[in-house]
Amino acid sequence: MSLHLYNTLTRQKEAFKPIHEGFVGIYVCGPTVYSDSHVGHGKSYVSFDIVVRYLRYLGYKVLYVQNITDVGHLLDDGEDRMLRQARIEKLHPMQIAETILRSYFEDMDAMGLVRPDISPRASGHITEQIELVKALLDKGYAYEVNGSVYFDVRKYADYGKLSGRTVEEMLEGTRVEVRSEKKNPQDFALWKRAEPEHIMRWPSPWGEGFPGWHVECSAMSMKYLGEQFDIHGGGLDNQFPHHECEIAQSECATGRPFANYWIHNNLVTVNGQKMSKSIGNQITLKDAFKKFDPLVVRLFILQSHYRSTLDFSDEALLGAKSGLEKLLNTVRNLRTEAAKARGESRAAAAAIDLESYRSRFLAAMDDDFNTPQATAVLFDLSREVNALLSLETKFSAASLEAIDALLEDLGGRVLGIVPEGSHAGLRADMKLEADLVQLLVDLRAEVRAQKLWPLSDRIRDGLKKLGIVLEDKKDGTVWRKG
Amino acid sequence: MSLHLYNTLTRQKEAFKPIHEGFVGIYVCGPTVYSDSHVGHGKSYVSFDIVVRYLRYLGYKVLYVQNITDVGHLLDDGEDRMLRQARIEKLHPMQIAETILRSYFEDMDAMGLVRPDISPRASGHITEQIELVKALLDKGYAYEVNGSVYFDVRKYADYGKLSGRTVEEMLEGTRVEVRSEKKNPQDFALWKRAEPEHIMRWPSPWGEGFPGWHVECSAMSMKYLGEQFDIHGGGLDNQFPHHECEIAQSECATGRPFANYWIHNNLVTVNGQKMSKSIGNQITLKDAFKKFDPLVVRLFILQSHYRSTLDFSDEALLGAKSGLEKLLNTVRNLRTEAAKARGESRAAAAAIDLESYRSRFLAAMDDDFNTPQATAVLFDLSREVNALLSLETKFSAASLEAIDALLEDLGGRVLGIVPEGSHAGLRADMKLEADLVQLLVDLRAEVRAQKLWPLSDRIRDGLKKLGIVLEDKKDGTVWRKG
Repeated sequence: MSLHLYNTLTRQKEAFKPIHEGFVGIYVCGPTVYSDSHVGHGKSYVSFDIVVRYLRYLGYKVLYVQNITDVGHLLDDGEDRMLRQARIEKLHPMQIAETILRSYFEDMDAMGLVRPDISPRASGHITEQIELVKALLDKGYAYEVNGSVYFDVRKYADYGKLSGRTVEEMLEGTRVEVRSEKKNPQDFALWKRAEPEHIMRWPSPWGEGFPGWHVECSAMSMKYLGEQFDIHGGGLDNQFPHHECEIAQSECATGRPFANYWIHNNLVTVNGQKMSKSIGNQITLKDAFKKFDPLVVRLFILQSHYRSTLDFSDEALLGAKSGLEKLLNTVRNLRTEAAKARGESRAAAAAIDLESYRSRFLAAMDDDFNTPQATAVLFDLSREVNALLSLETKFSAASLEAIDALLEDLGGRVLGIVPEGSHAGLRADMKLEADLVQLLVDLRAEVRAQKLWPLSDRIRDGLKKLGIVLEDKKDGTVWRKG
Repeated sequence: MSLHLYNTLTRQKEAFKPIHEGFVGIYVCGPTVYSDSHVGHGKSYVSFDIVVRYLRYLGYKVLYVQNITDVGHLLDDGEDRMLRQARIEKLHPMQIAETILRSYFEDMDAMGLVRPDISPRASGHITEQIELVKALLDKGYAYEVNGSVYFDVRKYADYGKLSGRTVEEMLEGTRVEVRSEKKNPQDFALWKRAEPEHIMRWPSPWGEGFPGWHVECSAMSMKYLGEQFDIHGGGLDNQFPHHECEIAQSECATGRPFANYWIHNNLVTVNGQKMSKSIGNQITLKDAFKKFDPLVVRLFILQSHYRSTLDFSDEALLGAKSGLEKLLNTVRNLRTEAAKARGESRAAAAAIDLESYRSRFLAAMDDDFNTPQATAVLFDLSREVNALLSLETKFSAASLEAIDALLEDLGGRVLGIVPEGSHAGLRADMKLEADLVQLLVDLRAEVRAQKLWPLSDRIRDGLKKLGIVLEDKKDGTVWRKG
């Protein structure tokens, strides 16, 4: 088996073969930085985080480019998203971009996402976009009207090949323009003339204006990954028109194929309903994090396939929370036991067929990044480890460490939910916290040895109030965050 | 008294008067993102953090712009800093920029710096820079040779007004070019032709090339703050040639004054020696943070004036460490006492002349941001509070809270070293940690009441091993991180 992925362009699962052996160039449509990310963004970027992590796990050198849209993303009424937010908050659009960009990376960092290698900004690549528009005009694929430049879709026979839409279907989603300067309603803007009130504007061969939304992704992906590259990703809502337009303008400008594989993640619903600003049921990640640890949200996203819709509800997240706690408790108890074993000479090997777990896990991931199956394998392993740890047998350090290494490899490196290092279930910055809990656990053992039962209860109750639950096992007490 | 600041341009302290009442535009030269920040960067950005914080404290609405140099900053041998690092690490220059930019903000966030409102990148403002060069050519201040454009310093009579250097002195610092295409040796590049191997290149009216280093700061400061703005800051090493060139090109392009006030911070020495890459004594902030808490480094920087050199040595930092611990212990003990007082009816007022402390503090800050004096005032106040807390008197909650409010206002809002909130001395993410310590402190009180002395000692010693020191006072036990 080798990695197969579903290519939207061909509508089938294909064996993955990069252009240059051992190297993968991937471009993912990033956020428009005008308001805090919602759980839909969470699903999209966690999905592509897995793609990048898994490709790296397989040994590929991956160059991961994810753009930042800070200009040109227009609303249905034609107003620029950034400018509208700037107008509401009475700030320069670049202040909004700066603040929201920081908020975006805060949220992504919290969920343990690997940062993109390059995060190019649309406003930072005006020159490159103008060059692309010039090339399309030179080759006759575009035309200028009143200081704006449009792509002429009739000149590109393959228009529609990604979304599979006919010209009639495309028109349905298009805003009716009363007095259009376009030749065909489905033509799209490459460059727009700036009206006097438009703050974000740059000089161009066609007068002062700003780039159309689609053109940034063509200009920036090709700048950093080359004219033809391996993977282009994005949310399903970007398939049409955004990605269709990207393909048209890129392939016409260069005369060669653009991205080889197109990956689209499906969308998030909330309690069964489509999430949208107009319904008012959008949940920001920051709000979700108030109720649930960011890693719970991450696991929740991984427990459905990226090409399935994901229904967001508190009940469903409570399930992921309980799952994550069980997994992390297993890891912590395993590591505690391994630490004890290191000081003793033990012969018994913990007999788990690790290679079978690994191959089941990889088979799931190779099958179009099937994370629900892969996490299920991880939970199976966790259950078997738990059963093992409850036995009287004293297992050898080496055999316990081998299990830990597999859990960290699959659950950590690939899925990003099992933490590294020796304080499992806790992040590195919480080391003192773990040491303080351990001091209390040790004290409790001492007062129990002295039969000072009220003090023992006092410690257990005091910890419980702080959300820490003790469990007395045969050979000692383990604790978990309840 | 009102705010007076030393203006490098006039070589004297001047009363500060902004262009638009109540509003301040400030531009500070930011990092060239090719390697991790060192303690010299720390001094510079902490200094301007104080300028911004104090202006805001005084009620000004401040727009703080700090650029990111990711192109055009050439080394003495003419190689671009970013490109050299990219060549060494075999990465795209933008990957270097991305990684180092993140590292930069990590360091600055750790020291509690307020983020700039806008962090524009040089590579993201090529269009704006080309427009500036075109304007200078149109007005006859610049000339083109072989695809490069140079500023003709003989055309600008005021060249040298910031640094006070004569043309002869300027030449001393200039690299001798064997076969120069410049009219005068002191002319500087606005746009450079890109040699074939130069990766970072953009099309321009003069062929493919890249902007000179100085031009980015003129283009970006004027874009976001207007052609004439209030304050321009940077390190003393940027005064010449960088800032001198900025003034020349900006004032010639617009025909009006550029920045009204120029603020320059002095440099850092290490054990009395100039810090430089060639000597090999550069200390990165990340290395410094391994030994000292970032807030210790911050306090250390504030304890000398921004226009004085700062000598970095472990001994000097140990002094700052001890100072910070004393201050934070005072704040914590004060807040603990205030919390107790809230539950009781107490009449005695803690008689400290808070207004006198505040006015001494403000007088220091108004005098060209004299942070060494301002921190001294804060420490005087801390000592008086300490003395007060060791008395038998039970002070009222209101009077204790008034002291806390002043400490937080001056030490927190202005100087950025006293944390907000109710868990003084600890950051918000350490709440559980503080709760666990308190549980142990309470347990100790209980076992002492039961005369279980060995258990009491066990708790004190266990905490001590974790770096937490208990001190028994008349009305209870306080703790501090030792």
